[in-house]
Amino acid sequence: MFIRKKVLLTGLLSSSLLMAPALAHTPIEGLLADAPSNWGKWGEDDQVGALNYLDSDQVMRGIQAVQSGQTYTLQLPMTHGVGPVFPGRVPTMHFMSQDEGLYSTDKLEALPGGVKYSDDAVFMYLQGTTHVDALGHAWYGDKVYNNNSADSTVHGHDAVDVGVLGEKGVVGHGVLLDVGRYAGNEVNRLAPGSCIHLDDLLNTAEAQDVSLQKRDILLIRTGSMGRYYSDQPDAEWDAMTEPGLCYSEELVQWIYDMEIPFIAADNLAVELVPQEIDGQDYVIPLHGVLMRDLGVVLSELYWLDDLADSSAADGQYNFLFTAAPLKMKRGSGSPVNPIAIK
Amino acid sequence: MFIRKKVLLTGLLSSSLLMAPALAHTPIEGLLADAPSNWGKWGEDDQVGALNYLDSDQVMRGIQAVQSGQTYTLQLPMTHGVGPVFPGRVPTMHFMSQDEGLYSTDKLEALPGGVKYSDDAVFMYLQGTTHVDALGHAWYGDKVYNNNSADSTVHGHDAVDVGVLGEKGVVGHGVLLDVGRYAGNEVNRLAPGSCIHLDDLLNTAEAQDVSLQKRDILLIRTGSMGRYYSDQPDAEWDAMTEPGLCYSEELVQWIYDMEIPFIAADNLAVELVPQEIDGQDYVIPLHGVLMRDLGVVLSELYWLDDLADSSAADGQYNFLFTAAPLKMKRGSGSPVNPIAIK
Amino acid sequence: MFIRKKVLLTGLLSSSLLMAPALAHTPIEGLLADAPSNWGKWGEDDQVGALNYLDSDQVMRGIQAVQSGQTYTLQLPMTHGVGPVFPGRVPTMHFMSQDEGLYSTDKLEALPGGVKYSDDAVFMYLQGTTHVDALGHAWYGDKVYNNNSADSTVHGHDAVDVGVLGEKGVVGHGVLLDVGRYAGNEVNRLAPGSCIHLDDLLNTAEAQDVSLQKRDILLIRTGSMGRYYSDQPDAEWDAMTEPGLCYSEELVQWIYDMEIPFIAADNLAVELVPQEIDGQDYVIPLHGVLMRDLGVVLSELYWLDDLADSSAADGQYNFLFTAAPLKMKRGSGSPVNPIAIK
Amino acid sequence: MFIRKKVLLTGLLSSSLLMAPALAHTPIEGLLADAPSNWGKWGEDDQVGALNYLDSDQVMRGIQAVQSGQTYTLQLPMTHGVGPVFPGRVPTMHFMSQDEGLYSTDKLEALPGGVKYSDDAVFMYLQGTTHVDALGHAWYGDKVYNNNSADSTVHGHDAVDVGVLGEKGVVGHGVLLDVGRYAGNEVNRLAPGSCIHLDDLLNTAEAQDVSLQKRDILLIRTGSMGRYYSDQPDAEWDAMTEPGLCYSEELVQWIYDMEIPFIAADNLAVELVPQEIDGQDYVIPLHGVLMRDLGVVLSELYWLDDLADSSAADGQYNFLFTAAPLKMKRGSGSPVNPIAIK
Repeated sequence: MFIRKKVLLTGLLSSSLLMAPALAHTPIEGLLADAPSNWGKWGEDDQVGALNYLDSDQVMRGIQAVQSGQTYTLQLPMTHGVGPVFPGRVPTMHFMSQDEGLYSTDKLEALPGGVKYSDDAVFMYLQGTTHVDALGHAWYGDKVYNNNSADSTVHGHDAVDVGVLGEKGVVGHGVLLDVGRYAGNEVNRLAPGSCIHLDDLLNTAEAQDVSLQKRDILLIRTGSMGRYYSDQPDAEWDAMTEPGLCYSEELVQWIYDMEIPFIAADNLAVELVPQEIDGQDYVIPLHGVLMRDLGVVLSELYWLDDLADSSAADGQYNFLFTAAPLKMKRGSGSPVNPIAIK
Repeated sequence: MFIRKKVLLTGLLSSSLLMAPALAHTPIEGLLADAPSNWGKWGEDDQVGALNYLDSDQVMRGIQAVQSGQTYTLQLPMTHGVGPVFPGRVPTMHFMSQDEGLYSTDKLEALPGGVKYSDDAVFMYLQGTTHVDALGHAWYGDKVYNNNSADSTVHGHDAVDVGVLGEKGVVGHGVLLDVGRYAGNEVNRLAPGSCIHLDDLLNTAEAQDVSLQKRDILLIRTGSMGRYYSDQPDAEWDAMTEPGLCYSEELVQWIYDMEIPFIAADNLAVELVPQEIDGQDYVIPLHGVLMRDLGVVLSELYWLDDLADSSAADGQYNFLFTAAPLKMKRGSGSPVNPIAIK
Repeated sequence: MFIRKKVLLTGLLSSSLLMAPALAHTPIEGLLADAPSNWGKWGEDDQVGALNYLDSDQVMRGIQAVQSGQTYTLQLPMTHGVGPVFPGRVPTMHFMSQDEGLYSTDKLEALPGGVKYSDDAVFMYLQGTTHVDALGHAWYGDKVYNNNSADSTVHGHDAVDVGVLGEKGVVGHGVLLDVGRYAGNEVNRLAPGSCIHLDDLLNTAEAQDVSLQKRDILLIRTGSMGRYYSDQPDAEWDAMTEPGLCYSEELVQWIYDMEIPFIAADNLAVELVPQEIDGQDYVIPLHGVLMRDLGVVLSELYWLDDLADSSAADGQYNFLFTAAPLKMKRGSGSPVNPIAIK
Repeated sequence: MFIRKKVLLTGLLSSSLLMAPALAHTPIEGLLADAPSNWGKWGEDDQVGALNYLDSDQVMRGIQAVQSGQTYTLQLPMTHGVGPVFPGRVPTMHFMSQDEGLYSTDKLEALPGGVKYSDDAVFMYLQGTTHVDALGHAWYGDKVYNNNSADSTVHGHDAVDVGVLGEKGVVGHGVLLDVGRYAGNEVNRLAPGSCIHLDDLLNTAEAQDVSLQKRDILLIRTGSMGRYYSDQPDAEWDAMTEPGLCYSEELVQWIYDMEIPFIAADNLAVELVPQEIDGQDYVIPLHGVLMRDLGVVLSELYWLDDLADSSAADGQYNFLFTAAPLKMKRGSGSPVNPIAIK
């Protein structure tokens, strides 16, 4: 009646701004008809996909990369009501349930003996800050990773949830690819709307004098989070034009051949959000192929600027990488505060 | 009017079950009059307390402990509505906001190109699962750690919040002290109500053939979480009788002298919750002295049984330990999924 | 792995405690094969079911019942973390986001001119206090009320949600049937496990000297909420044995013939929760037939003791009844604070 | 470090956008030095302020205003993630915890007998939709209504909370003052930034041929909610320029003399938000004087357009008014769906 159309659309469902027109066919199924797949590679019950590549050897390779013991924590700050989020989410809302206010107003007495304590709670989208995606988080057709039914996602993921990634943990040899520094502007950020192609990754590695190895964990810096939090002149940030990876057959094949287990970036989606491929619009096609077909874990909204400054200064772009998603059973994603140890 | 007294008491405030009688003085201030303190040791603006001990040397010592590259993730599972929590908290409540149910009922179309995705949110007490306490989480008198006013806790910690612990990260040389195996029952669990004293820690270390070093991160296994999740005959679990550390001058002095930065355990509070000291009841007195006076970080509700089984089998009780609290600005605590790398 | 079966079952889904064994057929479909139905009576697009009976004439009949202008509000108190809830729900959790604590600690300045204000938020199950059920809240087979697909419930009710009941509002002629006083114990409460049959309703009305009329709104008092909040000797309260209506063909036919629009009670489910009919166990069968087939609105967890005391004293059991569910679009239920005006 | 100032300011506290410069004195205390007060009028323990005026006589006066039995529900729609909110709040977030998706994917079995049900939860600011303010919600100096300490607001209102308003309920004789129609544009809306003065109210009443009586409940229509939800040409809506009441001594004195118990409007704050009085900026000064000094209950974000259209058509501007805030103990506000019965 009095609800205007705009409100109905945006209020109804989170992603409606990005809704597709009704389609007789799903283009991505054609696009990926000949794409590689890791389904079944680690058994039909496999839950962690390309994280299987992260065996003890890879942990030891990460350990051996450590030279000085410097650590970098890579999560964005979590601030009540503030932070970059994908359309349909809100930033974390934080509430104290108990603090000195209760004691100083004589509403609550100290515990026996005299100790007092504070306590707090949040309402939080699990992907509303730096996070790891479950392998079941994105898919196409009626299957999620490793031939599990798309129905497995309903009201909690029965399969390939983020909890199993938390059980496994992510520990291995990480490499920072600072594409923003290699190909960006005077403050080392890629322009809005920039596509990052395979060549950009390889050229960045070469410029950094880094030899990429099989099973490396990749951290791709675009400069987008620096732009979000910056007051500098290039600081117009927009969720829909963040620089990111763009789909290509070569990129997917390289990730497959290199047995890359985990790709993180300092943007909302690792990839550029709306992309055009062969004249057709796609939104997060790499989520489809990497997550669903290859079981590669994606991780987003990293703070990479401090690590990148350090690497630019000392020339060390590799490190032991650890990320520990929360063991949220049935979850689609989890907040995470990854650590790089150089 | 029609609200019975019980309801008023428990509904009003979370910790009222444990409320002290009105006291003319605070016993803990007398008890700790001669206790050591780290206030000012790292400057009056210091925010991370004994985590300052975790410098690059300690990171390297942790790295050098790694032998085979095995990893153990130490968080409890997070299951909607289930899990051990301190009185006044509820377990995490998890909700899908988007999943295949919307696509299969034609309520939501796939993104342009055909990719679909799920999304989820939680209502969560920040200490409602395995977590790290902020240094400001517990105190006595009118000051929290490092001479900050207790008012700094009001509606979000202005000082010594959990966010600064997340910025720093916790990386160092960890040691498991499996007191439950050393002094426990036939399934390696301490009896309900057990006090763990300094001698128990030292004897356990000796029995494990472990030489404790300065600045070690301590993981203390009591068996309490195994009891919570177990169907075995000794499985009567009660938050108020979980085995844990008990206060003594010697214990506090030893922690101070050993420059212990971080103590974790597989129970709700590291320490036994109600303790009697010199005929006086105390609740969480070690929180008072360790957190407020020494700046030692406490971390709780660990899952240590798998790590402990492994250590019992191979005799390696030390490891690289990493824990990365979320950078929750102004927060009193943070969920965490720690990793031990052997 | 280490999660015991009990935890998995109760944690997975809210109602699993009440889960049925796998059934080749659904007994309720047989039971209700000849039951009356209101589908289509008010058009195929009807959203409010038997509330259609509440036309202006019924509003005026309610108005005419008012004699002295006394008012009774019928919601239970909402107290942080406390209150009777159906398995799978938790009571409302209430948090202040802003209060004098911020001003008195100089963390927040007054608004320009000097005014200060408090603010608060809740995490709340919509049926976690006194509430109105949406017509789509319960069903059997693959259809909810008025031939809408059960899929209409997925991630928000597309049809017969609680929002449309909020748009309509509930205003009419109410009658209290104090069965607890008529047939209860010395403190006027029915025994746990008591079935209320049609005869009990009719006999109670007769004892009260009330002549029930078509389209009356019924408020049934069992005494169960008094028991929940009481310290009196009969105060053992259990969600699974609250006294309530029990299914019978006669009862359903009478509700249909009397064109009852709305039935409320001082218990969790209006009806006795597990009922045995012809040797078969049923849980909330009256929800099935009343809500899905007849479009009768059910409303629960009322505080009726004060109203009942008043009626017992003055002999007036009828009143203007108003209840205004929140206009929660797509909602399955809504908290409500109904008012009886005598 | 990398957090820009803007983010710090807006993230820290909800109302910081409106923060005052540090003040040596509080202007409102001077402004209101000679203002009337109702403190003590109904006893020092009074919790409901001017709602005391709503006695049985007023209920009967409301009853007598009813002519035809038409009802109008006055809440805005509650739509997930959408709706007008004051800075610092977010609209209600709604989540299904259970629905047909679980049954159709065989994740949940029907209850014994075959009934299925849906369930849902919200995260909600209590003033994030149409709502009633607690008398303790706004204040100046160190006292809230009726001489209660401002400390009574800390972590839940010990006094004059919204729960007591819910216990009382709001029932009386309501009058719509359609200022938007009397003094507005071609679509009957006041211009952004418009001040409504006492004369505007009186002139509107006169134009409507309404004789205002003592103890009337006032509903003031500005047209602002119509503007928010409209696609019409004048639809630029801004929380900071919504038309509303402006402070004047005459207005306050008139409200006091007329013993007005309750004032509602179709905007965020009843009053214009930033107002200039004698060259000084004020934000919500009427909240200060009406709520704190007079105990007048304010209620906001009403949907009045349908009621107003009806009144314009039939000339009846008075009605029985009912509003039932939830009995949220210790709460600062409550959502409400008021009903006007003509």
